[in-house]
Amino acid sequence: MAQTTSIPKGTRDFSPLQMRRRQYIFETIRQVFALHAYLPIETPAMENLSTLMGKYGEEGDKLLFKILNSGDFWAKAAGTAWDGLEPGERAVKLGNRISEKGLRYDLTVPFARYVVQHRNDLTLPFKRYQMQPVWRADRPQRGRYREFYQCDADVVGSTSLWQEAELAQMVAEVFAALQIPVTLKINNRKILAGLAEYVGCPDKIVDITVAIDKLDKIGLDAVEVEMAEKGIAGDAWRKLAPVLELRGSFAEKMVYMRGLFAQVPVGLQGVAELEELFGYIAQCVEGLDYEWDLSLARGLNYYTGAIFEVKAQGVEMGSISGGGRYDDLTGIFGMKGLSGVGISFGADRIYDVLESLNRFPADLQSGQAVLFIHFGPEEAAAVQAAMRTLRANGIACDRYPEPAKLQKQFAYADKLRIPFAVMVGERERETGRFSVKDLRSGEQRDMDLNELIVMCKR
Amino acid sequence: MAQTTSIPKGTRDFSPLQMRRRQYIFETIRQVFALHAYLPIETPAMENLSTLMGKYGEEGDKLLFKILNSGDFWAKAAGTAWDGLEPGERAVKLGNRISEKGLRYDLTVPFARYVVQHRNDLTLPFKRYQMQPVWRADRPQRGRYREFYQCDADVVGSTSLWQEAELAQMVAEVFAALQIPVTLKINNRKILAGLAEYVGCPDKIVDITVAIDKLDKIGLDAVEVEMAEKGIAGDAWRKLAPVLELRGSFAEKMVYMRGLFAQVPVGLQGVAELEELFGYIAQCVEGLDYEWDLSLARGLNYYTGAIFEVKAQGVEMGSISGGGRYDDLTGIFGMKGLSGVGISFGADRIYDVLESLNRFPADLQSGQAVLFIHFGPEEAAAVQAAMRTLRANGIACDRYPEPAKLQKQFAYADKLRIPFAVMVGERERETGRFSVKDLRSGEQRDMDLNELIVMCKR
Repeated sequence: MAQTTSIPKGTRDFSPLQMRRRQYIFETIRQVFALHAYLPIETPAMENLSTLMGKYGEEGDKLLFKILNSGDFWAKAAGTAWDGLEPGERAVKLGNRISEKGLRYDLTVPFARYVVQHRNDLTLPFKRYQMQPVWRADRPQRGRYREFYQCDADVVGSTSLWQEAELAQMVAEVFAALQIPVTLKINNRKILAGLAEYVGCPDKIVDITVAIDKLDKIGLDAVEVEMAEKGIAGDAWRKLAPVLELRGSFAEKMVYMRGLFAQVPVGLQGVAELEELFGYIAQCVEGLDYEWDLSLARGLNYYTGAIFEVKAQGVEMGSISGGGRYDDLTGIFGMKGLSGVGISFGADRIYDVLESLNRFPADLQSGQAVLFIHFGPEEAAAVQAAMRTLRANGIACDRYPEPAKLQKQFAYADKLRIPFAVMVGERERETGRFSVKDLRSGEQRDMDLNELIVMCKR
Repeated sequence: MAQTTSIPKGTRDFSPLQMRRRQYIFETIRQVFALHAYLPIETPAMENLSTLMGKYGEEGDKLLFKILNSGDFWAKAAGTAWDGLEPGERAVKLGNRISEKGLRYDLTVPFARYVVQHRNDLTLPFKRYQMQPVWRADRPQRGRYREFYQCDADVVGSTSLWQEAELAQMVAEVFAALQIPVTLKINNRKILAGLAEYVGCPDKIVDITVAIDKLDKIGLDAVEVEMAEKGIAGDAWRKLAPVLELRGSFAEKMVYMRGLFAQVPVGLQGVAELEELFGYIAQCVEGLDYEWDLSLARGLNYYTGAIFEVKAQGVEMGSISGGGRYDDLTGIFGMKGLSGVGISFGADRIYDVLESLNRFPADLQSGQAVLFIHFGPEEAAAVQAAMRTLRANGIACDRYPEPAKLQKQFAYADKLRIPFAVMVGERERETGRFSVKDLRSGEQRDMDLNELIVMCKR
């Protein structure tokens, strides 16, 4: 009956050390969300396919994990006339007949569904956070998984740019707590839309931002060639090139853009929003490195205002957090005109950054401060009172579960990286003093229970 | 494009209030697990069907949620000769061809799989806790869901009965922290096996325990009739009846059972284990109501030693926690003879008990202590410094996001059940003193920021 043991590709088991480190990241983010009065919600892992389909583009639909209907799923599917269909077509049609539910792909669409479904119970503006796994049938590769956590905070029902400023505050607080130096890059979709309109190619926003992004790497001449291939040439290029070369202070750039957008209202509005937001951030955020990045576009189509991304300084890694303003997310579920703005922290990438910077706190190495080492049944019993006292003081401890050779018990403590081994023999039982060994330094000395507690808490 | 919004039957959205209450339960359990040096792990939501199938009986197999293979799943399935098959048979066969993964059904089988898969990295005994959702395609009904959390702690690789005693300790600590009065019922599978052997019906363990369980409700005569229907009559009944009527102290009962089991080694071993465990519990657990319950059997077949269940006192509700010893859980994955013992806390039922006893802490009512109420852009900005200070002191706060009528801002605070409204106008900005209103009592007075912090922390 022996079986090989494995898990589906693209999924992961998390060991105790990984879990403690992940809990540290999640708790840091959760605390910042909660202190800013974002409220927790959770939604089911499974959503109706009608909720999910068509929200992530054609490519996204293909990446949904679908749940086979329970019971005799074939009963409903049989009888459909698909014998004449192409195999691929048949798979799609059959899939729709035998599956009604899918695993959530992100937390944003379930949140939009939640807001609409519970709109009569919600007080607007509604600030919510949600930290749950999502699933995507992506091709697994380094750093990309089929199951991963998202940590999202969004607010719907307020158009105030103070909301965006608060997200910047939270970015500053999360990464200060995690000791990761970051840069917050900010842009505004209306500026990009204005720029595309200004150069006469309103449908080429993405191509234009790609051009801006590549400038530092390949130079203006090479960008000109690439742009020409995309159909941005002649007048359009002559209008775009000076923007690509724009340098100066934030205020100087704003003056320039206002001039540029004299006849482009959407661009002017984007500039005004950006200036207002930068003013708020200056008022309420301390110690954050932030900048306007004209090349920042972000992929998702639903953003309509501010967009932002966070990059870790000194680490080669994609953005570790990002978000933006969307004017009409719940419209797809029939609730129009509810503006939202949100941010998502990427726990997996933050984990990788902390690992490469070696910034995980050392005390995450072990889940336990003390192992009681004992010599027989009498000592095993005697140690119970001491353990109760330590635990009442918030100190995780254990005793080796059965009498065993000293060497074996110490080896156990070593493997679990437990910092303190406390020996309990006849003498200790009589005197109430314990012989405590610091397994990191090798130092050993006698102390009573209170001294042990103080030492563990240090 | 408007859509109706709903979620799959048997699943739930959790609102902020429900979430805070659930987090309170989970954190209480997690802290107890961690203080006892159980280590956290997580496993993927999806397991290979080969890992899950055949582990929960035929009925359990049917309750697994299966994931449709990605891509052109039909390509592999087409061509199979199922046109001659019955529809039901065809569904099973087709299901196996188009699905290779399923959602986990519990945390025990994934844990067994984890132990075997990572055996070279584990230090035995391995104490792990795991708190994750599981999914079952059960018929939804009151109190039974298709997605629910399990909170499990297990230890493998130690046969010491101190492990069982520690689980009793954790039961005591969890429910003391949650302020739920409970009774821990303990039995031993070997005693039940011994009893069945003693009356000459070794395959009737379940029928016998059902009889014992019903005695109080229907009386000895009615039980005799029911037992006869199950084939336990004549000599077997004459041997069983006195055990059903067994009364007296724990010690007296043990003496009686030892006599009964003079020729039944497995029964004697069960009695010895129970006595040893009760001795340990007396040494290490304070303030727990626990008892030997001969009628306790628990359904799962893999238990082989101690079994236990926790009942909330004064509430009509099934067990809110349960577990036991299993001698060979990892054997199904080819790793023989690794003894384990574990306990599972039922978060949903604990939630219902806390609700019916009205024992949720009052401060879970709101996620936020303070709302700053302001009159215009100047005050909105001025309030930022105060909010930073409150948050640095661990106090969740917010300001109404835009200038609005006082009434609207107060209504918002009321709806979110925020205890303190702090008014910030021109006078407050000039003097540094705030007008603070306790929205529960209606009391209002002036104070500075330090007084506000002290009041919030009280």
